[in-house]
Amino acid sequence: MKMKAGEILLLLLCLNVVSFGVIANPPTCPADIGKECSDSGEWEGEFFPGIPKINYEGPSSKNPLAFKWYNAEEEILGKKMKDWMRFSVAFWHTFRGTGGDPFGAPTKYWPWEDGTNSLAMAKRRMRANFEFINKVGVDWWCFHDRDIAPDGKTLEESNANLDEVVALAKKLQGSKIRPLWGTAQLFMHPRYMHGGATSSELGVYAYAAAQVKKAMEVTNYLGGENYVFWGGREGYQTLLNTDMGRELDHMARFFEAAVAYKKKIGFNGTLLIEPKPQEPTKHQYDWDAATAANFLRKYDLIGEFKLNIECNHATLSGHSCHHELETARLNGLLGNIDANTGDPQIGWDTDQFLTDIGEATLVMLSVVRNGGLAPGGFNFDAKLRRESTDVEDLFIAHISGMDTLARGLRNVAKLIEDGSLAELVRKRYQSFDTELGAQIEAGKVDFEMLEKIALERGEPKVPSAKQELAEMIFQSAL
Amino acid sequence: MKMKAGEILLLLLCLNVVSFGVIANPPTCPADIGKECSDSGEWEGEFFPGIPKINYEGPSSKNPLAFKWYNAEEEILGKKMKDWMRFSVAFWHTFRGTGGDPFGAPTKYWPWEDGTNSLAMAKRRMRANFEFINKVGVDWWCFHDRDIAPDGKTLEESNANLDEVVALAKKLQGSKIRPLWGTAQLFMHPRYMHGGATSSELGVYAYAAAQVKKAMEVTNYLGGENYVFWGGREGYQTLLNTDMGRELDHMARFFEAAVAYKKKIGFNGTLLIEPKPQEPTKHQYDWDAATAANFLRKYDLIGEFKLNIECNHATLSGHSCHHELETARLNGLLGNIDANTGDPQIGWDTDQFLTDIGEATLVMLSVVRNGGLAPGGFNFDAKLRRESTDVEDLFIAHISGMDTLARGLRNVAKLIEDGSLAELVRKRYQSFDTELGAQIEAGKVDFEMLEKIALERGEPKVPSAKQELAEMIFQSAL
Amino acid sequence: MKMKAGEILLLLLCLNVVSFGVIANPPTCPADIGKECSDSGEWEGEFFPGIPKINYEGPSSKNPLAFKWYNAEEEILGKKMKDWMRFSVAFWHTFRGTGGDPFGAPTKYWPWEDGTNSLAMAKRRMRANFEFINKVGVDWWCFHDRDIAPDGKTLEESNANLDEVVALAKKLQGSKIRPLWGTAQLFMHPRYMHGGATSSELGVYAYAAAQVKKAMEVTNYLGGENYVFWGGREGYQTLLNTDMGRELDHMARFFEAAVAYKKKIGFNGTLLIEPKPQEPTKHQYDWDAATAANFLRKYDLIGEFKLNIECNHATLSGHSCHHELETARLNGLLGNIDANTGDPQIGWDTDQFLTDIGEATLVMLSVVRNGGLAPGGFNFDAKLRRESTDVEDLFIAHISGMDTLARGLRNVAKLIEDGSLAELVRKRYQSFDTELGAQIEAGKVDFEMLEKIALERGEPKVPSAKQELAEMIFQSAL
Amino acid sequence: MKMKAGEILLLLLCLNVVSFGVIANPPTCPADIGKECSDSGEWEGEFFPGIPKINYEGPSSKNPLAFKWYNAEEEILGKKMKDWMRFSVAFWHTFRGTGGDPFGAPTKYWPWEDGTNSLAMAKRRMRANFEFINKVGVDWWCFHDRDIAPDGKTLEESNANLDEVVALAKKLQGSKIRPLWGTAQLFMHPRYMHGGATSSELGVYAYAAAQVKKAMEVTNYLGGENYVFWGGREGYQTLLNTDMGRELDHMARFFEAAVAYKKKIGFNGTLLIEPKPQEPTKHQYDWDAATAANFLRKYDLIGEFKLNIECNHATLSGHSCHHELETARLNGLLGNIDANTGDPQIGWDTDQFLTDIGEATLVMLSVVRNGGLAPGGFNFDAKLRRESTDVEDLFIAHISGMDTLARGLRNVAKLIEDGSLAELVRKRYQSFDTELGAQIEAGKVDFEMLEKIALERGEPKVPSAKQELAEMIFQSAL
Repeated sequence: MKMKAGEILLLLLCLNVVSFGVIANPPTCPADIGKECSDSGEWEGEFFPGIPKINYEGPSSKNPLAFKWYNAEEEILGKKMKDWMRFSVAFWHTFRGTGGDPFGAPTKYWPWEDGTNSLAMAKRRMRANFEFINKVGVDWWCFHDRDIAPDGKTLEESNANLDEVVALAKKLQGSKIRPLWGTAQLFMHPRYMHGGATSSELGVYAYAAAQVKKAMEVTNYLGGENYVFWGGREGYQTLLNTDMGRELDHMARFFEAAVAYKKKIGFNGTLLIEPKPQEPTKHQYDWDAATAANFLRKYDLIGEFKLNIECNHATLSGHSCHHELETARLNGLLGNIDANTGDPQIGWDTDQFLTDIGEATLVMLSVVRNGGLAPGGFNFDAKLRRESTDVEDLFIAHISGMDTLARGLRNVAKLIEDGSLAELVRKRYQSFDTELGAQIEAGKVDFEMLEKIALERGEPKVPSAKQELAEMIFQSAL
Repeated sequence: MKMKAGEILLLLLCLNVVSFGVIANPPTCPADIGKECSDSGEWEGEFFPGIPKINYEGPSSKNPLAFKWYNAEEEILGKKMKDWMRFSVAFWHTFRGTGGDPFGAPTKYWPWEDGTNSLAMAKRRMRANFEFINKVGVDWWCFHDRDIAPDGKTLEESNANLDEVVALAKKLQGSKIRPLWGTAQLFMHPRYMHGGATSSELGVYAYAAAQVKKAMEVTNYLGGENYVFWGGREGYQTLLNTDMGRELDHMARFFEAAVAYKKKIGFNGTLLIEPKPQEPTKHQYDWDAATAANFLRKYDLIGEFKLNIECNHATLSGHSCHHELETARLNGLLGNIDANTGDPQIGWDTDQFLTDIGEATLVMLSVVRNGGLAPGGFNFDAKLRRESTDVEDLFIAHISGMDTLARGLRNVAKLIEDGSLAELVRKRYQSFDTELGAQIEAGKVDFEMLEKIALERGEPKVPSAKQELAEMIFQSAL
Repeated sequence: MKMKAGEILLLLLCLNVVSFGVIANPPTCPADIGKECSDSGEWEGEFFPGIPKINYEGPSSKNPLAFKWYNAEEEILGKKMKDWMRFSVAFWHTFRGTGGDPFGAPTKYWPWEDGTNSLAMAKRRMRANFEFINKVGVDWWCFHDRDIAPDGKTLEESNANLDEVVALAKKLQGSKIRPLWGTAQLFMHPRYMHGGATSSELGVYAYAAAQVKKAMEVTNYLGGENYVFWGGREGYQTLLNTDMGRELDHMARFFEAAVAYKKKIGFNGTLLIEPKPQEPTKHQYDWDAATAANFLRKYDLIGEFKLNIECNHATLSGHSCHHELETARLNGLLGNIDANTGDPQIGWDTDQFLTDIGEATLVMLSVVRNGGLAPGGFNFDAKLRRESTDVEDLFIAHISGMDTLARGLRNVAKLIEDGSLAELVRKRYQSFDTELGAQIEAGKVDFEMLEKIALERGEPKVPSAKQELAEMIFQSAL
Repeated sequence: MKMKAGEILLLLLCLNVVSFGVIANPPTCPADIGKECSDSGEWEGEFFPGIPKINYEGPSSKNPLAFKWYNAEEEILGKKMKDWMRFSVAFWHTFRGTGGDPFGAPTKYWPWEDGTNSLAMAKRRMRANFEFINKVGVDWWCFHDRDIAPDGKTLEESNANLDEVVALAKKLQGSKIRPLWGTAQLFMHPRYMHGGATSSELGVYAYAAAQVKKAMEVTNYLGGENYVFWGGREGYQTLLNTDMGRELDHMARFFEAAVAYKKKIGFNGTLLIEPKPQEPTKHQYDWDAATAANFLRKYDLIGEFKLNIECNHATLSGHSCHHELETARLNGLLGNIDANTGDPQIGWDTDQFLTDIGEATLVMLSVVRNGGLAPGGFNFDAKLRRESTDVEDLFIAHISGMDTLARGLRNVAKLIEDGSLAELVRKRYQSFDTELGAQIEAGKVDFEMLEKIALERGEPKVPSAKQELAEMIFQSAL
């Protein structure tokens, strides 16, 4: 039998799964999918039939499908919790996560999936997304262009697919829900294997620009409040075959053009760069907050971008999440947080839901110091573990992540009310809260004057830093 | 249109690729694949038409398709190079590697692939394998059951598929080529998501046993010299939901049954455990050589297994490769080497071809001390970078890896001939090459006697360890 | 002026400080030390005059010098808190810690220190130790021989010094306080630079034996309940100049002799090996729990030793502390815990007091599963930060560390009472709680039978691992 | 006996050694030091009597005290080797390194040391330094102020000490030798425990300024070509007690004042910042090259400083050394290299002499691309291992380090002559070597134009990155 071109194409797409063996029976699929699998099916019913709208029940609740700490309308430190948090569901992890990993085939077979990447399936999945958003009770969502609509055979076809799904999303959003941000997926397709903006191929640079242009347009159309650049392939595998200087220049040209286009179309969202040190590349150009800031300053883009800090990326780069948040904040660049966590002993991005209370409290300390994150917020760039295959696990994970950050906020309120940690810090620096201190801080005291002071004062007194006391106070608030 | 069950199944298999977008044109496919794509096609022609048999041309050669250091029949330290090295091609990386990664779709579209996972395709691929082996000039190959033959709808069907491909492989092997080892793939299929031998599900334990039983049979049938256990899913993601003690007991029962079955069928190959610290799991039970040795001793399996040491796994576990090789050797367990390397700054398995000369020299030092590896050898558990998409890259990578280890062997010969490094070590321990030293080493000197010696001798003289001199001598041999 | 030998000697000792500069005025020394500095001074008064006996005041207390969670006599899970915890003060960190680091001179000048290492000073310091122990309210302490008494010019003199201080300690201990463990310091003196038991010099091996013999005697004399081996120099800096096999054999001979001597003198304490992966050496022979267990099994010492697990060492070896505790427990080797923590982004031993509640809860889970640690306990192998220079910081740090573990125990009680986490785990493995499961676990089911089962049952059902739910339940108990 | 104040002081200084035990006999001291130990002794004879001037003998030499690859006057790539390398001896490691580590007392007792930190000893040591420099055959040296002259009781006294030693150094330098750079030691003394420029204490800020002022003056006086800032204590241990924003502002004020003072005194040397990620602090403000560059740009100091890149610091920050060199170079900031290496599995600064040929070749690639380093050079910020205690080890280590980099330079010459690696890179980017490429690189092509191009051209062709070939070519040059 001679295969037709279309079939060959389809089969080629399967290569990375089937190369490792036919998976004869999806072993965890709980539902009768056949009934709903027609290409034109418009599954408009309930996607999560057993799951109610998630409500706040307080810390003593044992109900896994209830909030114990997150009470959206409750006011803390002068703002409603929902306005501090601005939680967002990440479409890709929640609706396109398969449980596959470098050593394993997909494990998740949600009842609403028909096994295709058709437009109809994309639309059905979008309906599931909004049911999920409504049940979890958040107002934002985030997406890559290729998550929500299938790639076509040509760019035109891909754009048309995207338009069709976006029109539905617009309708489903209603008056309350908006994208926290949108972005273009410039890392999955093999054309981007050498990068998008930093590809060695001019044609890929152009293609990436076209894709960002479109993604920015649809983000704008949907009322998105930010637009994110994560340069998953903008980096190198080895410097032996790489002209890093030229690639960085290309990246700057690309960002300049993005800024210009944003202004041209009147998109008012914030442009965000998301640092990550490595993975998939050996070294990514947006290594961490300071590296991204240096890039923005060097190429005179500093006023046009903010940063999207991801906790798991922070720790992979050798910093605590709190450090990266504070570095972004002090550079005036804290725009958004990808809320997740990694494993302290693992050297790759695990994108776990954050459940560490101390960590959450530190994160919220930075957020409160920043006066909140708006127009940014918390996007759950976190996924179920490969082995978590129940539909309810999607809810449990989000509830747990939201509750953890909410608990962090409550702890920050306790710390602030108590005041002793802030007082400890104030006292440490009080020698600068003097007239001479003010002059030094104003840049008015030169080395000769400083030497004179040192000679006059003799050996300085240096008090204890009281780290253990600070840790004790901090822990008491948890 | 109502889809048929078979189609749904096929499409489900595609889920992890297509979930991220249709790849409209395979961008690097160099050949006219349509012609060869029929299901029954028996591509018996040349798979690598431009590539000659790889020959030794010596260090001054600039030919990328020639050996500069590996000269198979040349005798070094009393053995032919090929007998020291016993190089093996890893079927999975070389013929099933797609270039996919957690953030990217496949990038490799070899001309002989038709995009299917059919039996016919499996056989065609097997022919390519043997042409490759012959052109590269090695005598061994390694495989997982599911690499070489497609998974079926049932275990019976999978076994039948395997038998059919194995029969062809047996024919193609001829009189010279043999499996260095075979193994069962117990990590890709979702049924193994909680482990194989250590799955929380009894049914999976049984299934894994059935699969290992069959893989051991076909390895034996093909004349394989070893059988490997790599427990990619034998570990845990979190201890919160894991009964580690019970899982370890199950693993021991499983290994005992494997030993019994090996003996029953008269398979004379060595059973090998391949340690890896983590990835895909958070923590794997065969963390490193010492951990595997402890397991074998605890469960009284120490005489039945050896270890397959992989350099990239060694460094991920915080050890140098040389350390792991020596640890295995000193425990009498050095059975085989998975020759590859990782990136010193990267926290996951990159499976790169080893090109570091110093490292290769250290590896060969252990091999020479071990008197060689037979019946084990060097399996190239190494893959092309995702961005390396030319057919010739497969050859360049193997040549480079083989030359590097061959260069290591030549360096070891220089070190041994020079003798000064061995002499430096001998001198360090010479105080034990005395009568008293011999008594101590025989366990005949108790604490009271030792105290008496210490009191009599007074403060011991402690000479320099001469590390910098040792490093200078070592480097001079490179 | 011609210097006298004694002065030269004294000055030589200063070399590592003064090489970096005279520290003209101890900047934080709060007290009039001159008055107390005479060689014969017997400071018998109060060492911590402003610090009361530390009492339990409950979670709402804001008093830094009170326990909020540790209530020694309170019964939890059927045992008094103090019997679960068996807290011990580490003499070296608390009384010999100077705040020095590889880049910095000492920062701590406690009022009772006279700047000498005299015997009189050693005795005064011992008095301070017992006042501290009594005020903090613990019953155990730990020491190295050379912490508590000055090294002499000869081994005889060192032993005599030790005897004198130990006699005082015996008196000060009274009827209630005992060493949790003693040990010999085989890493500080340059004679041990190549190791003690694994030194390349026979004379050092003998000297180390003599020192361990004496340390074991005094531990026994003081009623110590354990004796620890931490092989800080038992390892290598480079394999190029090292005969690892010979060194490991020497270590085994040394341990055998230690066991024999223990029995000879009727010392009933447990011998403990303390694993650490590296630092100060590049690679230590007792890398982690599994490595130490393998060593003990290989050399047939498995019944004679247990392990002292240190959390900071665990994380440096790439494991969670919980993993190391469970590994020790499952090998029947969990003997004692060095309670501390490291920094997740730092690659050396920071020996911080543990203040992470989640971590403490996991640690206590293992302890409760182990039925407690007795005759071992929790030794605070933790030190003040270099910048913490107030006497009260010593108390704050210990209170914080004790409260954290006490809070962990209370959380474990909540988890056990709630029961849902244990139930989640039980359910995961229930397919083995069957007749067939029992047969498999008894080693009675061979591969042929397992294959038959696999063929009969078809594709196994594999449920969700519920990791996110487990994390939610765990966090709810904090 | 009542101690006198001076004695108490002296003894206090000993605290960090003696706290761990009297070292009765320096075990490795090879010479009769008593004879030379008088305070006024002017050891003007030979310090290294058995060591000749080190000469070039070529690669076949087996003489440890000869160069095999470094031939100072030989011209390579248009420059003499000595002009490419500009090697410098680090006074601190070579003459103040004691072998002490956090777990061990000093191990090195050089024959010329009398055990004091006296001015006379400082001068004798300076003579040893210049004999060493002359015998090794380099033209530069580097120092901290407090390495070369003892700290006094007051700043005035310290400065006077420094002046006296510097006057001698000036004389000994002769016409050829100069400091590659000088610096102030702002990390050892406890006054700097919270930082120098970033201390929470104003008095310390002033003291640090006075010390830098003086160090800059003496560097200028000695003809130094650079001045280095390594902020070993400029960072934090925990953010809980730290006002990072205020500290960074203070650091900027401090650097501004340094620039102003440099100009005022007509010092023409380059100011260099030396990045290091952590150690001794948990997090240092000059984490890596990009972080330092961001700081310089943020505070408008970018034209006034360059960077001193240390290879061991690079790898600790998660980058390859080559990456950091290229990052510095591309930011116009590559000023100097601290030539050393770390251990790939160790998480702290080991400051080893670099002996890896591949690494050295990559380093020299950056240096050649930079057109050399002048007025910077290669400072050997590397030390003997603790266990290397022979005087000749100092020479062997330096020879080995110099030869390795010289070998790297020779390899770079081979790579450049061969040309195929450069050609491989050129070809990768050739699509940008077009008219359209030039327009894109000039920032003249907007998103609309790029989209038009993408639509017209269709799917871009993306060739192989040829990493394995690049690695093969690179290795062939070694």
